Amino acid sequence: MDGYNFYHPIEVRYGDLDPQGHVNNAKYFTYLEQARVAYIIHLGLWDGHSFFDIGFILADAHLTFKTPILFGTNVRIWVRVSQLGTKSLTMEYRMEDAGDGHEFATGDAVLVTYNYHNGETIPIPDEWRQIIVEFEKIPSEN
Amino acid sequence: MDGYNFYHPIEVRYGDLDPQGHVNNAKYFTYLEQARVAYIIHLGLWDGHSFFDIGFILADAHLTFKTPILFGTNVRIWVRVSQLGTKSLTMEYRMEDAGDGHEFATGDAVLVTYNYHNGETIPIPDEWRQIIVEFEKIPSEN
Amino acid sequence: MDGYNFYHPIEVRYGDLDPQGHVNNAKYFTYLEQARVAYIIHLGLWDGHSFFDIGFILADAHLTFKTPILFGTNVRIWVRVSQLGTKSLTMEYRMEDAGDGHEFATGDAVLVTYNYHNGETIPIPDEWRQIIVEFEKIPSEN
Amino acid sequence: MDGYNFYHPIEVRYGDLDPQGHVNNAKYFTYLEQARVAYIIHLGLWDGHSFFDIGFILADAHLTFKTPILFGTNVRIWVRVSQLGTKSLTMEYRMEDAGDGHEFATGDAVLVTYNYHNGETIPIPDEWRQIIVEFEKIPSEN
Repeated sequence: MDGYNFYHPIEVRYGDLDPQGHVNNAKYFTYLEQARVAYIIHLGLWDGHSFFDIGFILADAHLTFKTPILFGTNVRIWVRVSQLGTKSLTMEYRMEDAGDGHEFATGDAVLVTYNYHNGETIPIPDEWRQIIVEFEKIPSEN
Repeated sequence: MDGYNFYHPIEVRYGDLDPQGHVNNAKYFTYLEQARVAYIIHLGLWDGHSFFDIGFILADAHLTFKTPILFGTNVRIWVRVSQLGTKSLTMEYRMEDAGDGHEFATGDAVLVTYNYHNGETIPIPDEWRQIIVEFEKIPSEN
Repeated sequence: MDGYNFYHPIEVRYGDLDPQGHVNNAKYFTYLEQARVAYIIHLGLWDGHSFFDIGFILADAHLTFKTPILFGTNVRIWVRVSQLGTKSLTMEYRMEDAGDGHEFATGDAVLVTYNYHNGETIPIPDEWRQIIVEFEKIPSEN
Repeated sequence: MDGYNFYHPIEVRYGDLDPQGHVNNAKYFTYLEQARVAYIIHLGLWDGHSFFDIGFILADAHLTFKTPILFGTNVRIWVRVSQLGTKSLTMEYRMEDAGDGHEFATGDAVLVTYNYHNGETIPIPDEWRQIIVEFEKIPSEN
């Protein structure tokens, strides 16, 4: 996907469906969360084990639903960081059909860098900033 | 709550919590959904039984997380319709502690009026428009 | 309910339903968990806050489904401890309609007393044993 | 796995975890459901699309938890039908680590053949019986 360097595949579960026969709206956020966690593990920003060492907390979530997701679909979730602030970053998502590429939803989120041990926000560590900038080829003035 | 005429209470379940020890972000959307459905039943826009007769589909969801929700909290979710379009409406939410009133999150959503039997969008029925306008005291030019 | 001294009410959420239009089987276990946690808080065996101080881990779960649970139903879950071993106890459940009392499901579980801080099983503390025996009027030879 | 001819892989989601830091007990039943549905699709007993044409309803579920499932694990769920009755069948499960094969849980379930269109139980159709007997190599006297 143009502008994205990472995706995570999701298997739709029967348990994700609601009485309308498609994936329930709240499960989209579970899918995005899974892709987001996979992204931060992929970039080496979290070890995948010590939950209080996850350095991010969700501050804002936004999603636009385009077409329903049906059982049996293979979902592909593209993830990228589009902006880096002092203590927060903006993440963007595109959810699509892994088969024919058609779009299910697009979204974005604001993540705040956070220390779960003491419940305080922290500046984005320089090392993380560098890793993300390089991975995403974000222009340095951001 | 100023500007809101309806709320729905939610009991936090142990099953809503994640390894960070607070309510998982995706569950906020389950809570909002529950409040939204309670609202449309309260206004008589759905009977609560025939799922393909729910006349709304979610097109857009947005949520700003303020403070974590802990186990044992009684959550109150205020719901209102703030705008009525031709085939869609805007809903607003405030999630707060039913005890001390402090804010957990605020959000909004766009719902499109929809016929699940044939998968097509429909104009907001006049009767629904009238019910919502009266309930919410929305100025008539909306 | 004869033989039970504790129940917990559950509100069915739209998000608990599956494409068959009734509460999904896995959600029954979420309901039982909520009732189980309410029970151990009610008896003063857990403070409701420090998750690594919950002194129980689930070893076995069994449920017999009688009639589907529909949206709009008020569910009542009766909980009791029926047997106390050295390092485990047996819990029994009855899920019913809070309105007309008809049975949705019955089940039982084995809980092992457990120290989450070091991941080891522990004997049931004498104090807990005494509290449970008194609450449940379990004959002392158990 | 000896005695099993089918398995389904499950990716553990962050959203499956609870405050104890491992997969929540109710999610095991979501995993089993996913494997069960995959099994009936694999054998051609359901098309994967028309939910009211799923010919089974869960009557009984039982699970023994052996070791916790951690984030990052690849779960493999073995499924087999071990017994065929007139209007019901017994399914058995083994949940294991796809990496080193160690056992997470074992379980069984009773499924009743069911017509969701009219809410009535039905005898196991002869064609289904034949397909299952052949797939599982169940001795014919069962």
